[in-house]
Amino acid sequence: MSLTSYIRTIPDYPQKGVKFRDITTLLHNPVGLRTAIDQLAERYRNIPIDHIAVIESRGFLLGAPLAYLMNTGLILIRKKGKLPAATIGEDYDMEYGTSTIEVHTDAISPGNRILLIDDLIATGGTAEAAVKLIRKCGGEVVECAFLVNLPELGGNERLREIGCPTFSLCAFDGE
Amino acid sequence: MSLTSYIRTIPDYPQKGVKFRDITTLLHNPVGLRTAIDQLAERYRNIPIDHIAVIESRGFLLGAPLAYLMNTGLILIRKKGKLPAATIGEDYDMEYGTSTIEVHTDAISPGNRILLIDDLIATGGTAEAAVKLIRKCGGEVVECAFLVNLPELGGNERLREIGCPTFSLCAFDGE
Repeated sequence: MSLTSYIRTIPDYPQKGVKFRDITTLLHNPVGLRTAIDQLAERYRNIPIDHIAVIESRGFLLGAPLAYLMNTGLILIRKKGKLPAATIGEDYDMEYGTSTIEVHTDAISPGNRILLIDDLIATGGTAEAAVKLIRKCGGEVVECAFLVNLPELGGNERLREIGCPTFSLCAFDGE
Repeated sequence: MSLTSYIRTIPDYPQKGVKFRDITTLLHNPVGLRTAIDQLAERYRNIPIDHIAVIESRGFLLGAPLAYLMNTGLILIRKKGKLPAATIGEDYDMEYGTSTIEVHTDAISPGNRILLIDDLIATGGTAEAAVKLIRKCGGEVVECAFLVNLPELGGNERLREIGCPTFSLCAFDGE
């Protein structure tokens, strides 16, 4: 059974014409949650990874179980002002205005091999900013992995342009 | 080794005189993360739990691995406006003004036995609201579990007053 079958589509959210892919129904289902995490763990089983970086806040839900399973630690990438110690940030464009994500300055050591996890890739703006942030700290992004890809929005290509491999467990076309 | 040793204390954050207990250093350490999750899993191993409810967003980081290990699904409790489908909410008082948390109306079935997870209990205001919200949906909160307790702030007593058991993996006194 494809993971897409666990994901609910909500029409016209957050605005008219948008089909929102709601992963809370997958997370609510023990089989959905377990299958998604197991598939990620299987993919990275034999690849050296020092840390898993997770993007606030839905990325936390997938990256934390994966880090547990892989015996790695977590690096939190959060919106501006949410991390309590010294941080380094990266700005990125949103549909309206700009936003900033941050990481603790002591969370990444030069040469660290990092797997970046978020729930969904659409235009790839947030993921691109996260990759740049990790690289600015000297880390190497081994891959960016997502539960859901929306290929029509071009996020994979955007990350490929900056030399970052991507992987998604499932995809929705526009229908 | 106590879990407190993995947690960093940041003085005067978010305001002067406050000692902020920063769990990102525990999460960053593979042994810290694994020990915390394993201790929670051990405590609930033989207790029937239908779902794990997690409070945005640091609660996600502990509750998601636990749900994976316990073969249960997740119920997300988020700040107002973050959940895409129909929700039910609960207001609670903050130091300045009020806030609202929400859950999807279809996430909890009457009689569900729910374990509530958050990273830290201080005054217990958010946890109390979450318990009330779950009960409003017909769910039963088996226990509220936290990584960190700040006992001087009285959160445990507040939850006990509404008949909800609590458990914490470690505690900091005021020093």
